[in-house]
Amino acid sequence: MKEHGSNILVTRCSEEMAQGILETCPEAHYNQLGRTVTVVQSELKTTEDYIAIVAAGTSDLPVVEEAYETARLLGNSVKKITDVGVAGIHRLFANLDDIQNAKVIIVVAGMEGALASVVGGLVKKPIIAVPTSVGYGANLGGIAALLSMLNSCASGVSVVNIDNGFGAAYNASMINQL
Amino acid sequence: MKEHGSNILVTRCSEEMAQGILETCPEAHYNQLGRTVTVVQSELKTTEDYIAIVAAGTSDLPVVEEAYETARLLGNSVKKITDVGVAGIHRLFANLDDIQNAKVIIVVAGMEGALASVVGGLVKKPIIAVPTSVGYGANLGGIAALLSMLNSCASGVSVVNIDNGFGAAYNASMINQL
Amino acid sequence: MKEHGSNILVTRCSEEMAQGILETCPEAHYNQLGRTVTVVQSELKTTEDYIAIVAAGTSDLPVVEEAYETARLLGNSVKKITDVGVAGIHRLFANLDDIQNAKVIIVVAGMEGALASVVGGLVKKPIIAVPTSVGYGANLGGIAALLSMLNSCASGVSVVNIDNGFGAAYNASMINQL
Amino acid sequence: MKEHGSNILVTRCSEEMAQGILETCPEAHYNQLGRTVTVVQSELKTTEDYIAIVAAGTSDLPVVEEAYETARLLGNSVKKITDVGVAGIHRLFANLDDIQNAKVIIVVAGMEGALASVVGGLVKKPIIAVPTSVGYGANLGGIAALLSMLNSCASGVSVVNIDNGFGAAYNASMINQL
Amino acid sequence: MKEHGSNILVTRCSEEMAQGILETCPEAHYNQLGRTVTVVQSELKTTEDYIAIVAAGTSDLPVVEEAYETARLLGNSVKKITDVGVAGIHRLFANLDDIQNAKVIIVVAGMEGALASVVGGLVKKPIIAVPTSVGYGANLGGIAALLSMLNSCASGVSVVNIDNGFGAAYNASMINQL
Amino acid sequence: MKEHGSNILVTRCSEEMAQGILETCPEAHYNQLGRTVTVVQSELKTTEDYIAIVAAGTSDLPVVEEAYETARLLGNSVKKITDVGVAGIHRLFANLDDIQNAKVIIVVAGMEGALASVVGGLVKKPIIAVPTSVGYGANLGGIAALLSMLNSCASGVSVVNIDNGFGAAYNASMINQL
Amino acid sequence: MKEHGSNILVTRCSEEMAQGILETCPEAHYNQLGRTVTVVQSELKTTEDYIAIVAAGTSDLPVVEEAYETARLLGNSVKKITDVGVAGIHRLFANLDDIQNAKVIIVVAGMEGALASVVGGLVKKPIIAVPTSVGYGANLGGIAALLSMLNSCASGVSVVNIDNGFGAAYNASMINQL
Amino acid sequence: MKEHGSNILVTRCSEEMAQGILETCPEAHYNQLGRTVTVVQSELKTTEDYIAIVAAGTSDLPVVEEAYETARLLGNSVKKITDVGVAGIHRLFANLDDIQNAKVIIVVAGMEGALASVVGGLVKKPIIAVPTSVGYGANLGGIAALLSMLNSCASGVSVVNIDNGFGAAYNASMINQL
Repeated sequence: MKEHGSNILVTRCSEEMAQGILETCPEAHYNQLGRTVTVVQSELKTTEDYIAIVAAGTSDLPVVEEAYETARLLGNSVKKITDVGVAGIHRLFANLDDIQNAKVIIVVAGMEGALASVVGGLVKKPIIAVPTSVGYGANLGGIAALLSMLNSCASGVSVVNIDNGFGAAYNASMINQL
Repeated sequence: MKEHGSNILVTRCSEEMAQGILETCPEAHYNQLGRTVTVVQSELKTTEDYIAIVAAGTSDLPVVEEAYETARLLGNSVKKITDVGVAGIHRLFANLDDIQNAKVIIVVAGMEGALASVVGGLVKKPIIAVPTSVGYGANLGGIAALLSMLNSCASGVSVVNIDNGFGAAYNASMINQL
Repeated sequence: MKEHGSNILVTRCSEEMAQGILETCPEAHYNQLGRTVTVVQSELKTTEDYIAIVAAGTSDLPVVEEAYETARLLGNSVKKITDVGVAGIHRLFANLDDIQNAKVIIVVAGMEGALASVVGGLVKKPIIAVPTSVGYGANLGGIAALLSMLNSCASGVSVVNIDNGFGAAYNASMINQL
Repeated sequence: MKEHGSNILVTRCSEEMAQGILETCPEAHYNQLGRTVTVVQSELKTTEDYIAIVAAGTSDLPVVEEAYETARLLGNSVKKITDVGVAGIHRLFANLDDIQNAKVIIVVAGMEGALASVVGGLVKKPIIAVPTSVGYGANLGGIAALLSMLNSCASGVSVVNIDNGFGAAYNASMINQL
Repeated sequence: MKEHGSNILVTRCSEEMAQGILETCPEAHYNQLGRTVTVVQSELKTTEDYIAIVAAGTSDLPVVEEAYETARLLGNSVKKITDVGVAGIHRLFANLDDIQNAKVIIVVAGMEGALASVVGGLVKKPIIAVPTSVGYGANLGGIAALLSMLNSCASGVSVVNIDNGFGAAYNASMINQL
Repeated sequence: MKEHGSNILVTRCSEEMAQGILETCPEAHYNQLGRTVTVVQSELKTTEDYIAIVAAGTSDLPVVEEAYETARLLGNSVKKITDVGVAGIHRLFANLDDIQNAKVIIVVAGMEGALASVVGGLVKKPIIAVPTSVGYGANLGGIAALLSMLNSCASGVSVVNIDNGFGAAYNASMINQL
Repeated sequence: MKEHGSNILVTRCSEEMAQGILETCPEAHYNQLGRTVTVVQSELKTTEDYIAIVAAGTSDLPVVEEAYETARLLGNSVKKITDVGVAGIHRLFANLDDIQNAKVIIVVAGMEGALASVVGGLVKKPIIAVPTSVGYGANLGGIAALLSMLNSCASGVSVVNIDNGFGAAYNASMINQL
Repeated sequence: MKEHGSNILVTRCSEEMAQGILETCPEAHYNQLGRTVTVVQSELKTTEDYIAIVAAGTSDLPVVEEAYETARLLGNSVKKITDVGVAGIHRLFANLDDIQNAKVIIVVAGMEGALASVVGGLVKKPIIAVPTSVGYGANLGGIAALLSMLNSCASGVSVVNIDNGFGAAYNASMINQL
């Protein structure tokens, strides 16, 4: 791929794999938290409209970073708005303008995934919800958040697979660049 | 039971059963929406502190009414605050004082059950959450809301069985009368 | 609502409920297959771009119709492309131009829900997938199609609840009118 | 947090993490069984009323200790009554006075979780039940105990997530300090 | 079968089926609650040892009766000990002698099925546990009681299918007649 | 326990734990396959009647050995009849006499657990079935065999938890010694 | 379809639908048990090789008949061998020649579905297993039999959806006519 | 086995086990990807007809290789057609002749398993579908692909257990050699 000069994204990349890539390709960028490696060979576009990535807690950051790196490599402007879970809803309200002005919103949340419904109730923009596997016990590896998001009482929410930051960003990018 | 002069509560009472009771006991009160029959033979107590019953949507009202009738028969003051689901979160904020001033709060919600987490984040009072079977498809007869409430990111939430308005009110009554 | 002069949409409307509405409001339109009633009081917009609703089989038509009525009432141009399930994939290819030229695509499919992945592999447009409860046995009331769509190997697919034609159309409308 | 002089609680803390904290903060207390680290900087309150933590078997002790440390740090008097599972019900009866005199009761049990129902039948106090993941096979990682507690035939039982000793203690503390 | 002169048992027999049988065979006995029809053509044996059928609540009586009719037709002495659920455990203790003196015990319980563990902890006799489908919501049609019984902390409990009073009695009869 | 001179059984004992026990107690016997340690201090009884342990395949042997050590320590005569799974049913028939002459039978089987039904159809003795976690994929950690055994078309089968060789032997011992 | 002169098969046909078809098309044949309607307009082929349909109990006959009608209409010779469930395994052995001489075998079984494994162990022919929804409780609407068949210890078994007699026959027909 | 001179197949063979076999039996062949060891002592047959193994992605190759080694050792000609998942459906069409000319087809796919339905719609040959555990989150260890294949809208598809390449090849071999 590198020889074609195109930009490259590797997701779900372990520390070990990343080191291997960096050795043969030192200009690659490794996002340890997001477990992504990106190689930018042709300058990235930056759209006028932007994607907002809204996330509940610090444990959700790996998925946020995967979505961020994907969305950036696909040429989008992105704003990350993190640590705005519903247990401290005032932080969400403090960031509402940045969320409302996005063209499309990615909501990343684990545990009960309530953030997707709350954002969906506040903002009339397309929302791609990503349940994460953050939690334990009756969380069932992210199934609780997944079911929660699928049953959202807010109408503008669609859902991708658990921890699928890539898929959410790919979707959001298509919408952002319409 | 009637002969002992004690107050009586029948829950999950069908239209037909209720009519049968009313025929032999005309002073009974039938709450059609809550599917309860109550017979008050000794005057009900009314506590100074009150229980708040907070509910998401109109489809959740049968469970609200079951909880209300139970809590009243057990001698509690009760405030009902309904139709404050997270899809229209401003209505919840408009009622926040009444919720915060309760001694204990019952939250009734179906679909994704996000209301429990949002109230739990806003109010530092014990919350008994009741998932309802309102919803369809991936709601799985209330399992989605149940899992959501068990995984609530807000710390003060405990949960009873799906549609168990009686159990929530019985719990809340014990706490309200401590 | 009628008195405000706004357009009205009722979903999941039984035959009996529909007759009741039609008696008091004869200008209402009842879509029996989609179980919707619509009342158009201010002329509907018709967007230049259109939403494509792509469906697998005749059993999926109730969800198609719910999505169609919703999308139309929200002012969108809509093309329905039905009976193009993967068991007869040539019919899908025969309609590929109409699908590719849409701004956003709703895919409705029950049983194994494979249609979402196939369309997602062929077309680079945002896809909202709606699993339906069509099937029996190991279909688990639509869970098989739901899981299938969430695990789609095609990247541009996001998913709404089982049989949620309304939600899919609401999402698609927001995207179509960006 | 330490600089604010407030008391600190870290839960689900691995051996390694605990050692790291103890090195920089030698006055911290590490509860190895409960996997908690606590730093007490302002003297702990001790309520007149107490919380009883009742547990079935020795495998449930990590959750007991997490609940204990949480309840203590929040300023509550606590009595631990352990190894009183229903397989040896006489031990439960021998401790009944201590359980009945508590203001609120936390019941911790794995396997089939029957202890919550038995205590609920014996004592008319609010009970917070914590299912644990103790068990194997059809225990499904604590789901068996969770379902058991949600379906308790005793009326005063509400439930938190599997292994959630922290949440149970947080709830119980709010009730104990009403 | 009738012509062979053997005794006959029909289980899961609807009202209508029962009436049909009674018309052609007036000496048949219809147990409406247990939904069984029995035809006794050769005198029933009555063992010296007896099977105890222990049940939690009145909703479990149909399964109790199915087990009773089966055990009797197979020639066993049977004692029924009902309404001794763990929510009122003193009633169980009041009947402990009758339970302990049985050769084998059938425990019938729905909801959380805790009765099997409690009896198993008190009595050192083989116990066949029958979960019933009594309950709602997170009971999952009896699955909660089934899992509870399979995970019993008492060692002498084995389990049959939900509502399978016949199978429990057939098992108990083989043991009782060893 | 050792000081009381009673016989001791440790189940689910790791290699490491076993070595620790053997060092302080050299007369202990470690069954590596069954993961049990036994210490025999008073001579074991040997009943005239025997328990048959019938098992499907070699992967089920750890559970067979756990059941065997338990039954022996409880003073029973035991016959092991292994590798008689239904895929080679002639081996089962070759051992039918030994199975039929037992007083009670333990059937140990993983994968689809069909052996319990086949033995139940051939032999009129009480059968305790133990599903094992042997298998992969749709086996779901032994749930497939568990459900299979609970739904057995043969009437004399009751079931214990997945891999619970101890519980099956404890049950069988009570029956064998009636 | 009728006008093209081809043979017609309608499956899952209710009594009412069947009567409607018979009125307009009196030469149609309605198989009430199998819920199929067939219209034979060009003479059916009859292969030299035959498909054996082997079934456990009388409750499985609707699926047997659906498979039979399908296989016949597709031009196959078919032998039905019913009521040979593993609870009475001698009846299966009495029919073994007819099973072994088939070119391909359909096994229809509900409850625990053990018949597929037993036949698979006895006969070296391709086996299409059809789980049926016959059963109750932990049968989960046929899921128990489905999992059992997917985990069969016999190697030659593949599986179709619950109650899918049509699919099994369609598969078997393709194999029988190779 | 080796002494009987027959051909030998070991599946699910770890690196370590394989090395052990190779040391004592150097003529053995270890397929690392497929985790199989084969020892060919009598020359393999090669049928005129062939089995096609069709697979979606590179992650499915271990199952492909297990199926391939099994089918070859059983004496079949085999064609492998890999990397033809539905996300790039043109590659599937490019290989359609090779698929259509096979006597029987094995389809190997993970994630949503849509490939089985697409091939089943295109080719009128018996198809054995193997779901793989490739995927994450709502894939549930291969259950999503399994359910998808069981609910295939294409009629000629039967299914084996998740990752069961051996079973699929054993089935296909029996059909290929009819």
